[in-house]
Amino acid sequence: MPSRIPSYPGSILVERAQLKLEEAGTGIESARAATQAMLHASRLGIDSHGFHLTSAYCRMIHSGQVKPRPEMKVTRTGPATAMIDAGHGLGHHPSYTAIEIVCEMAKEAGIGAAGVFGSSHNGAAGTYALAGAEAGFIALSSTNASSAVTLHGSKAPFHGTNPIAAAAPVPNSRPWLLDMATSSVPLNRVFLFRTLGKELPPNVAAAKAGAPTTDPSAADMLLPLGGADFGFKGAGLAGLVTVLCAALTGGTPDCHMARMSGAKTSAYRNAGHFFLAIDPARFAGATEFAQTMITYLAALREVPAKEGAAVLAPGDREWAVAGERDATGIPIDPETAAFLGL
Amino acid sequence: MPSRIPSYPGSILVERAQLKLEEAGTGIESARAATQAMLHASRLGIDSHGFHLTSAYCRMIHSGQVKPRPEMKVTRTGPATAMIDAGHGLGHHPSYTAIEIVCEMAKEAGIGAAGVFGSSHNGAAGTYALAGAEAGFIALSSTNASSAVTLHGSKAPFHGTNPIAAAAPVPNSRPWLLDMATSSVPLNRVFLFRTLGKELPPNVAAAKAGAPTTDPSAADMLLPLGGADFGFKGAGLAGLVTVLCAALTGGTPDCHMARMSGAKTSAYRNAGHFFLAIDPARFAGATEFAQTMITYLAALREVPAKEGAAVLAPGDREWAVAGERDATGIPIDPETAAFLGL
Repeated sequence: MPSRIPSYPGSILVERAQLKLEEAGTGIESARAATQAMLHASRLGIDSHGFHLTSAYCRMIHSGQVKPRPEMKVTRTGPATAMIDAGHGLGHHPSYTAIEIVCEMAKEAGIGAAGVFGSSHNGAAGTYALAGAEAGFIALSSTNASSAVTLHGSKAPFHGTNPIAAAAPVPNSRPWLLDMATSSVPLNRVFLFRTLGKELPPNVAAAKAGAPTTDPSAADMLLPLGGADFGFKGAGLAGLVTVLCAALTGGTPDCHMARMSGAKTSAYRNAGHFFLAIDPARFAGATEFAQTMITYLAALREVPAKEGAAVLAPGDREWAVAGERDATGIPIDPETAAFLGL
Repeated sequence: MPSRIPSYPGSILVERAQLKLEEAGTGIESARAATQAMLHASRLGIDSHGFHLTSAYCRMIHSGQVKPRPEMKVTRTGPATAMIDAGHGLGHHPSYTAIEIVCEMAKEAGIGAAGVFGSSHNGAAGTYALAGAEAGFIALSSTNASSAVTLHGSKAPFHGTNPIAAAAPVPNSRPWLLDMATSSVPLNRVFLFRTLGKELPPNVAAAKAGAPTTDPSAADMLLPLGGADFGFKGAGLAGLVTVLCAALTGGTPDCHMARMSGAKTSAYRNAGHFFLAIDPARFAGATEFAQTMITYLAALREVPAKEGAAVLAPGDREWAVAGERDATGIPIDPETAAFLGL
């Protein structure tokens, strides 16, 4: 975001966002979890999933698409598995609950997995993987989403942006943290570029009928990661997310899921999420795992970069932004600032 | 491969490849598993991992890089986890063993994971995921490999081509099957294009110092999936594979692993693999899972394709090739045919 945008301390934003969600009727647990997830995203520079979502969440509650006070049900279905019915509430509270449970199960069984269904948007997938890594586990988090991304060679969108997030603890360091959409760019970047009048990179978006375009105003759908020649890989990964998050959990597949924004709808989205935690102690051992993470990341940081480029591990950029924003505040766009009463 | 290349029935190739491996001193279990994995790849059109690897495997055994009769050790480390020491043999036998064990554990615990270390090349990752899907599970298979792929913006290779494979059962159909390198193309495609004098697609390979090139003879390293703008995603996925296959299992990270080909070396590679199986019965239930897979894939096949393109699910192309090759034989390049005494 341009630097002229005013910045605010996270604590103020947390307070205001929670207030707005509670005013909309959201229960305290749902509101707290949503706010925590937005803080994660805003701190790390993932502005598409930061506090600007507060108004979208309030709108979903007002329209009836999301239940403000859902009844969440957790069921242990096996020594290493659990299912969580999110009760058609916001996805954040069941997702933080899920990552806690998979870590507990991983402690007991070596690995744990949980499916969440009857859910809606759960923010940046990385916040849950990160929570797992902070508890000492390799953790994965994924969610399906409503259709926005074409298949490789299709004229119409089919998969959601279906992110895959993974995190792993690193001794004396912030965790290794990968949080990526399986499209090249998120939908919100297209909207942002429209506002800024900026051209999109090639092969990330398409106009109606699937023709690639770099004009954000003409863009009607996203293209899968891999571009013009290798989009089948991005589409395959998006499909894996649908298999894990919808088919496995009982969530609604992307192509049949109600959109989060756009037309006012009271149809529940029934989004699905999938979470996994792995205990390194049951594999090479916690000490050897930690040692290899150090060696591996040290070697990575020694790889020579091309001129004008920097060699980064997943999360490096995000942790740098978090450092800056912890010091100088989180930039908030004027519309969101107004909504939050700032 | 060009159609003038002679084709052979799979059964003949299995027999000849096994004979060559046994002549090189390989124990019967290692030889059988390696041959089974090469048959999988050759049938499905993944020629880079098919029978042409027989000579490479024999060379690795002759050079001492791979033990012909390894002592494999399986250890159950938790209710849902296992570790397998491959004893520095070929990777196929421990990998088929691992996928069998993770399926057993998934039946008991809902999910199961196994790490393999002290291994070497294990062929196409998809063969193990497929075996898991054929047993009724969602299965994942991954392996790390020696450095061949740059980081996003690096001048030198760092990660291996680090494939991710996943498979899921589909009622009355061949499984959904994704098997993808986290680079855009495999290294063998560069070699093939050199032979054919064909230009590479843009942004898949780089010359010395990391400058992208479409000239296969100048290509010295691969670029991660995502191309010029989004290669950090492919590099992130390759890193996830290194975390799961090397750091977690005790395998050697890509950047420190001896190459499989090139200089004669007797250094063990200590490659690592990671396997996972998930039992749908412990999530939405086997019936609902099956039903959603059918609905999802039916919807996918109805998405309109752009002119000249076809909309495919992961595995569709491979199963079509397998159908053809089962009928007309597997094309084998002259060098491999000579090596196999055909």
